[in-house]
Amino acid sequence: MMNAIIENVLIEKVTNQFHRSPRQMNQLHESDAEILKLPENANQVLAITTDSIVEEIALGVYDDPYLIGWMAVMVNMSDLAAVGARPLGILVSEVLPGSYPDTSLAALQRGIQDACAACQTYVLGGDTNFGTHLMLTGTALGTIDGSRTLSRVGCKPGDALYATGVLGGGNAFALSQITRPGNCILRFQPSARLNEGRTLTGIASTCMDTSDGVISTLDQLMRLSRVGFEIDEDWEKHLDPRSKELAGAFGIPSWLLLAGQHGEFELLFTIPQNSESMLHDAAEKIGWHPLRLGKAVEEQSIFLPLYGRTVNLDTQRIRNLAFQTDGDVGVYINSLLKIDDEIQKGAY
Amino acid sequence: MMNAIIENVLIEKVTNQFHRSPRQMNQLHESDAEILKLPENANQVLAITTDSIVEEIALGVYDDPYLIGWMAVMVNMSDLAAVGARPLGILVSEVLPGSYPDTSLAALQRGIQDACAACQTYVLGGDTNFGTHLMLTGTALGTIDGSRTLSRVGCKPGDALYATGVLGGGNAFALSQITRPGNCILRFQPSARLNEGRTLTGIASTCMDTSDGVISTLDQLMRLSRVGFEIDEDWEKHLDPRSKELAGAFGIPSWLLLAGQHGEFELLFTIPQNSESMLHDAAEKIGWHPLRLGKAVEEQSIFLPLYGRTVNLDTQRIRNLAFQTDGDVGVYINSLLKIDDEIQKGAY
Repeated sequence: MMNAIIENVLIEKVTNQFHRSPRQMNQLHESDAEILKLPENANQVLAITTDSIVEEIALGVYDDPYLIGWMAVMVNMSDLAAVGARPLGILVSEVLPGSYPDTSLAALQRGIQDACAACQTYVLGGDTNFGTHLMLTGTALGTIDGSRTLSRVGCKPGDALYATGVLGGGNAFALSQITRPGNCILRFQPSARLNEGRTLTGIASTCMDTSDGVISTLDQLMRLSRVGFEIDEDWEKHLDPRSKELAGAFGIPSWLLLAGQHGEFELLFTIPQNSESMLHDAAEKIGWHPLRLGKAVEEQSIFLPLYGRTVNLDTQRIRNLAFQTDGDVGVYINSLLKIDDEIQKGAY
Repeated sequence: MMNAIIENVLIEKVTNQFHRSPRQMNQLHESDAEILKLPENANQVLAITTDSIVEEIALGVYDDPYLIGWMAVMVNMSDLAAVGARPLGILVSEVLPGSYPDTSLAALQRGIQDACAACQTYVLGGDTNFGTHLMLTGTALGTIDGSRTLSRVGCKPGDALYATGVLGGGNAFALSQITRPGNCILRFQPSARLNEGRTLTGIASTCMDTSDGVISTLDQLMRLSRVGFEIDEDWEKHLDPRSKELAGAFGIPSWLLLAGQHGEFELLFTIPQNSESMLHDAAEKIGWHPLRLGKAVEEQSIFLPLYGRTVNLDTQRIRNLAFQTDGDVGVYINSLLKIDDEIQKGAY
């Protein structure tokens, strides 16, 4: 089932020769960050994760150096959030073009510092190289008290599905940047949901960040926990209103804000049936309002109410599109619109 | 004094906006890896470091996927070695060209796995992206028992200067690869000096790996500890014999094997006067023979016996060359040869 997804196959291909550390508590695919037992320390585990900002720069989705710096930190902090970790810091390896202007470099570094400050964490170190294209790799390190980590596996049918916040902002921003570079009317500067992730530890049955968009996230949770998800009738109220408006202005159906690959860096998580009140009590303490999206079901499919009926989405096709369109965003968007067209015509 | 070196100025420029973590035990420049106190654990500290393989690939020094994978691990493990850490593992972020052949990918991953096995460690995780050029970033994590870490600071005049093993192999390999791509008769596949680094903990006054070559390493140690180094008359016996031969065949004076920027990934370290016997006892236990290169002196210069006299090397000029020749290796080598010519003529 995992192998129906091109990205999962690629991950297997890249990792199949690697031996696994006996200290590593998570299996491949199972968690947003790697979880490690420390020698001589039973009360704390380490979480570590690495993520590069490459394609977003190449495609022009990120063109502002400040945002690039901010995101190099946040994509990694978001992975720490999804496992309930408290950040210790981040290392940043930068590849700078030989002619990179000092003002851009200063903005890039300010974005990195501001994102760290927003997460109450620090740059610990890094590496600087010169190359043809700007490229940033962050590696974030954190700790988790006790051994109760959040993972992507463990959801049961009947569990409620939630998001930490409104959805669709990542894809709306990407759409605008690709169509009208540099003129996006939306502010895209997500903050990792670290407090929310720590709050979910011991309450949520699964958790994963939406870095690849909501539908990819649901699809991955489905494959790992072998459950499906039924999205509520009123899901559109959980879309970011300005993103929905922007999609409308571009003639893009609003559900595609969940389908695109440029996520909003919220967390999706599931809550066992008898724990929903525990979630709300804990959330209230940090002034947070989780958004209920639907529930987990036996049948391993994603059911989304669309055009007056319940559509069983071909999430495999939707996820794999990003790997089949050779980085051509025009072709990618048209392929998504074709799926929408098929759904509207009832051919789906 | 630190600011005379272009690389140090670049590091300051990149990091000057960053706040420093209160958990971080090392200052900027002072150690090969970042050293962190863990919450609730007084008996162990973490070491973490990140390094990318970019320029070596772009220049053609590394053209074999297996070696590229091997080095992505070893450059980071070498930094852990230099602080006396025991590796917990590594994360590898890969940027692959869209058309990267499966056989090359398999060789790359085998190089990564073999290097991990050689260091008795593991790949913990990673990230895969697609881009125009192959590029690897590793981030290695380790632990240090107690708080006795090795750093680049603390050498006193009179301390003995040592290397973990023979020198010059990194620059001989780079010279050959750039001049006759793919036809190098030398085997270059360094192993991080992890056992030696741990042995040096509590004995050495400073330690640094030679990833940027011997002279750059000596120059950095000199600036950080405010001492100079006097190299012994018989230093040439510590050069790798085949590398010396190869340099000779290329008409390159053998001391330039210490001057070039592509290091051999040995450790350079200093031993207080009354601790040399402690070093030899400890080294014997792991079957290792440290090589004595010279000693630290008051005057902040690097003194190298050359052409029948003692030359006070302009290490600032030598180090900065790599940043002033715009990645043109021909110009770089000729600039080094010009320095040798000046020394031979006694103009230096």
